[in-house]
Amino acid sequence: MTDDEIADAWYDICKVLNKDNDDLKSDILNHVGNKWSLFVIHALGIDGRMRFSSLQQHIDGISQKMLAKCVRELERDGLISRTVYPEVPPRVEYELTPLGRGLLVQVTPLWHWIANSVSQFRQARANYDKSV
Amino acid sequence: MTDDEIADAWYDICKVLNKDNDDLKSDILNHVGNKWSLFVIHALGIDGRMRFSSLQQHIDGISQKMLAKCVRELERDGLISRTVYPEVPPRVEYELTPLGRGLLVQVTPLWHWIANSVSQFRQARANYDKSV
Repeated sequence: MTDDEIADAWYDICKVLNKDNDDLKSDILNHVGNKWSLFVIHALGIDGRMRFSSLQQHIDGISQKMLAKCVRELERDGLISRTVYPEVPPRVEYELTPLGRGLLVQVTPLWHWIANSVSQFRQARANYDKSV
Repeated sequence: MTDDEIADAWYDICKVLNKDNDDLKSDILNHVGNKWSLFVIHALGIDGRMRFSSLQQHIDGISQKMLAKCVRELERDGLISRTVYPEVPPRVEYELTPLGRGLLVQVTPLWHWIANSVSQFRQARANYDKSV
């Protein structure tokens, strides 16, 4: 990736991160920086459509309240869709939208990179903490 | 990107996001989800090494306190380095490390994608807010 490409991408993101878009910015970047959002996006990306209870079983350690908040935010931003089937009791299923699948594809290389860089992060932190 | 590649990347990131690494996780993902961290990484990526005061001028709207916190966190995680020149008054300069440059290259395609998807996010949110 050249400096020009980085500068272009930056120009684009600055347009997004300007003051008019503060809500949008915080939500979209927060999905990327939020462990639970990533878990939901990934679970739906790999296993397709799922019910709330299956999602909760898939995501180790998430509370019902946190999962409910998470799927609501992701649905609001168009990353997942929610379908209610008129059964008794009603069945509700979630799945990734094309936009959500796009996000999954974009963040996956970043996950790889972070995972592969963990020892460097850990070493840097140990050095820093020794020096202060 | 195939489902297998996504599953592999996910397996990697799960190793990072497990409980032993909660500090590391929150910090690394927060750099990616934090507007100010992104601004600092980008400014140093494009303009090379910079003094604190130049950084502050480059980053519209950042307070001195927020910038100080931000560079400290980025330095601690090995993403930027801080060099003190023994002059009077002392000169302090920041620059991206190879690790920081790696992160810049990884997040840039994601910025592009977010910037290009803004109208879809905005439309999704308008639809959702109308429906509830």
